[in-house]
Amino acid sequence: MSAQHKSPPTKYGIVVFPGFQALDAFGPLDILNMLSRSPALELSVIAETLSPVSTKLGSPGGSTIGQSVVPTHTFENSPADIEVLIVPGGKGTRDIEGTQTIVDYLRKAYPALKYLFTVCTGSSLAARAGILDGHEATSNKGSFTWVTTQGPNVNWVHEARWVTSGNIWTSSGISAGIDMMYAFVADQCGEDVAARIAIDSEYVRNTDPKNDPFAKYSG
Amino acid sequence: MSAQHKSPPTKYGIVVFPGFQALDAFGPLDILNMLSRSPALELSVIAETLSPVSTKLGSPGGSTIGQSVVPTHTFENSPADIEVLIVPGGKGTRDIEGTQTIVDYLRKAYPALKYLFTVCTGSSLAARAGILDGHEATSNKGSFTWVTTQGPNVNWVHEARWVTSGNIWTSSGISAGIDMMYAFVADQCGEDVAARIAIDSEYVRNTDPKNDPFAKYSG
Repeated sequence: MSAQHKSPPTKYGIVVFPGFQALDAFGPLDILNMLSRSPALELSVIAETLSPVSTKLGSPGGSTIGQSVVPTHTFENSPADIEVLIVPGGKGTRDIEGTQTIVDYLRKAYPALKYLFTVCTGSSLAARAGILDGHEATSNKGSFTWVTTQGPNVNWVHEARWVTSGNIWTSSGISAGIDMMYAFVADQCGEDVAARIAIDSEYVRNTDPKNDPFAKYSG
Repeated sequence: MSAQHKSPPTKYGIVVFPGFQALDAFGPLDILNMLSRSPALELSVIAETLSPVSTKLGSPGGSTIGQSVVPTHTFENSPADIEVLIVPGGKGTRDIEGTQTIVDYLRKAYPALKYLFTVCTGSSLAARAGILDGHEATSNKGSFTWVTTQGPNVNWVHEARWVTSGNIWTSSGISAGIDMMYAFVADQCGEDVAARIAIDSEYVRNTDPKNDPFAKYSG
């Protein structure tokens, strides 16, 4: 089906949590911000509570600086009509107990979504929710071994910039989420729209999902 | 002077304002977040007030979605010992009256800085403050003509991914700020440190400040 026959999603959501990776979120979001100039989009920033959420986790060895973003919704009251949900990764995903509410939310929200997006170690959260079972998926290369332990029934793809499987899009680490979102915009709105935003963003895209320069750094 | 003989800055600040471009800020910040794991850094997020600041401007033709970040300081009480100040661009820079307080702040803060960084149309704010007079500088290519009108005494460089002039680093549009920050980290902390963060971020750097694939799209 060509892009011009699709009805691109207009209702987006993103999950944030303490210790999320800033670029996992704001790489794809900046593309959506530009896409939203016309036609209008909606975005929900979803967290456990409405208190600001920091990229800084506060645990030893983590970042000593961070930025705080303001959620618009909680896991309890997030809009039921979100079409595309984005799940960033980051050091915060390693807090298994602290992220259980996210995992529960993803399990509850997934059936109503048109598309699920994970960036970096965000795939560990979707894996724990069982959503990725039987699907091909990828993740951050430096954390690959750990992530795969979170989803033993997932068909993990080691060498990939991003992977699509059914309505699930998973990307490699951090910057890969940018390339994946451009590919999604191209798929949904047409290559011309994606190319225009990349030019305006002065971004050199990696348009080949199999081109993964970082697979060799796997850990 | 080799990087190992330098004393890399530890005190950073970033200015935010309504309609700032998310990736202008969070591209470079994500690198600093990772750099800050060791040794520790400090970061001030500086705005007119302490109220959350949205990337969404709300003017016709602009983005219809946005994300809000929480400032830590105001222009009035920002730390006097900030060493590196980052100024993002975005549609908000076009509001000349609304951004006058930023211009005034930059003029006041610049003499105490070790380095000034501007990304994208953030250079228009530094230009209006007179800081760029007599310096070489660059900016967003799609907005280049407009930006140059904001600094008639600046030596604007059209074809450049980023430009360094004295202690002032200015980048091209949006994504270029990422390449510039990697170059800054390489300059200050060593190429090995920059390369390690880029691998961890799975980011393919443009390491040549003169390699500007977007100069041809100038507007």
